[in-house]
Amino acid sequence: MENSKISVDSKSIKNSETKILHGSKSMDSGISLDSSYKMDYPEMGLCIIINNKNFHKRMASRSGTDVDAANLRETFTNLKYEVRNKNDLTGEEIVALMRSVSKEDHSKRSSFICVLLSHGEEGIIFGTNGPIDLKKLTCFFKGDCCRSLAGKPKLFIIQACRGTELDSGIETDSGIEDDMACQKIPVEADFLYAYSTAPGYYSWRNSKDGSWFIQSLCAMLKLYAHKLELMHILTRVNRKVAMEFESYCLDPTFHGKKQIPCIVSMLTKELYFYH
Amino acid sequence: MENSKISVDSKSIKNSETKILHGSKSMDSGISLDSSYKMDYPEMGLCIIINNKNFHKRMASRSGTDVDAANLRETFTNLKYEVRNKNDLTGEEIVALMRSVSKEDHSKRSSFICVLLSHGEEGIIFGTNGPIDLKKLTCFFKGDCCRSLAGKPKLFIIQACRGTELDSGIETDSGIEDDMACQKIPVEADFLYAYSTAPGYYSWRNSKDGSWFIQSLCAMLKLYAHKLELMHILTRVNRKVAMEFESYCLDPTFHGKKQIPCIVSMLTKELYFYH
Repeated sequence: MENSKISVDSKSIKNSETKILHGSKSMDSGISLDSSYKMDYPEMGLCIIINNKNFHKRMASRSGTDVDAANLRETFTNLKYEVRNKNDLTGEEIVALMRSVSKEDHSKRSSFICVLLSHGEEGIIFGTNGPIDLKKLTCFFKGDCCRSLAGKPKLFIIQACRGTELDSGIETDSGIEDDMACQKIPVEADFLYAYSTAPGYYSWRNSKDGSWFIQSLCAMLKLYAHKLELMHILTRVNRKVAMEFESYCLDPTFHGKKQIPCIVSMLTKELYFYH
Repeated sequence: MENSKISVDSKSIKNSETKILHGSKSMDSGISLDSSYKMDYPEMGLCIIINNKNFHKRMASRSGTDVDAANLRETFTNLKYEVRNKNDLTGEEIVALMRSVSKEDHSKRSSFICVLLSHGEEGIIFGTNGPIDLKKLTCFFKGDCCRSLAGKPKLFIIQACRGTELDSGIETDSGIEDDMACQKIPVEADFLYAYSTAPGYYSWRNSKDGSWFIQSLCAMLKLYAHKLELMHILTRVNRKVAMEFESYCLDPTFHGKKQIPCIVSMLTKELYFYH
């Protein structure tokens, strides 16, 4: 196999005159290891909740977000996470918090969760004073930056807009019904991003009940965290948000709109909150 | 609930002076419907494989991609899909093909699969003559554009680069081990995008064995399509690519690199290829 060529699927390779002539190492060890993350470390891990309600300048206050923050606190406390709530952080404060948390020793913790409740755009979350790239926050937890979380699941739950598109929905008529073998792992592995909405879309929030996504996430975790795998819980969150919510506004532009959350998984194993 | 305010999590709302004062309709029907997609229609559905190997201008030929295309054909034929292989399509031909396929009557089909094997960048796939936005291809299948696939799973499998970043990996030392209740569904719902690599990253291909991702996807489908749910199969693909592959090149810039695929799910139910 090492005599075969290896290449990358980018058009730029040939342009840049880079030649990659050797094969890939494929390490088929035959060792069958766990297909689920080890979740029985002494601690489940941290759950950081960043709840931005009041913003500088002309950004609207996010009424209802305190309901989300309280709901999340209760949900993840019940799942035995060490929950830390933070309110109204600037971009710099969020970055500093993420850096500092990533430098803690997580070696006795099974996982890491960070929830971001704020305004947003595609790839961007808002501190109270302005935008920050999401990547600038998550990069502290990459395998090479945070060794004590390497190989462990790192969950980022993001309630924020990802653009200004609105989903008008469609009427449905009827028919709807092995690990030790390799010495290296990708630094981007074992991340999960649970986005409240699809790329480019608005994300809806109710001032009394909280956001559609966080309401649904907490409800599904309460019902299923003791018996379903995380991907299946999040699929139920997708279904709940998609089926049970629809916007009701006087402004016809914003009336009758729908939302679908978006699960982005680079996890390498199944995740069960129980063991 | 209809007296409470509803808002969206975008900073632009206040700026644009839009006021959204009414609540959301939350439809809690209590009707418990299937948590899995109905996969027993008379046909499983189409599996379109677009295999771009030879490109105009200076883009490198994608050696090994025919191995992927043949592997995929066998895998999805075994899963009872109607597989249609297409080679070396221009951007315009891909768009025309997608439009035409979306206009077919899928009402007797359980699902739809499209595999794209080509060069790429973030959000972009290459026809033989140049780039096209992925959204331009997938939009034909949104709930409002393709009614006979509404509420059914639509899978896009994408083997292509998403940028030029390289994942150097990290050494691991030891520790690594309700549906009918609502009359509308979001038009973006029920899509799954299985990307070969993380956003911004290169995607690796071996000239003899095919791409790391498609090799692993076909292997995991062969082993598990008869007993695991799709998210769990794709999680195993993530693990296989992450653990068992590493680039081996004379050029040190490209040597010893790793890859993690990326599952992006807007599915609202579990998907089992068997019933």
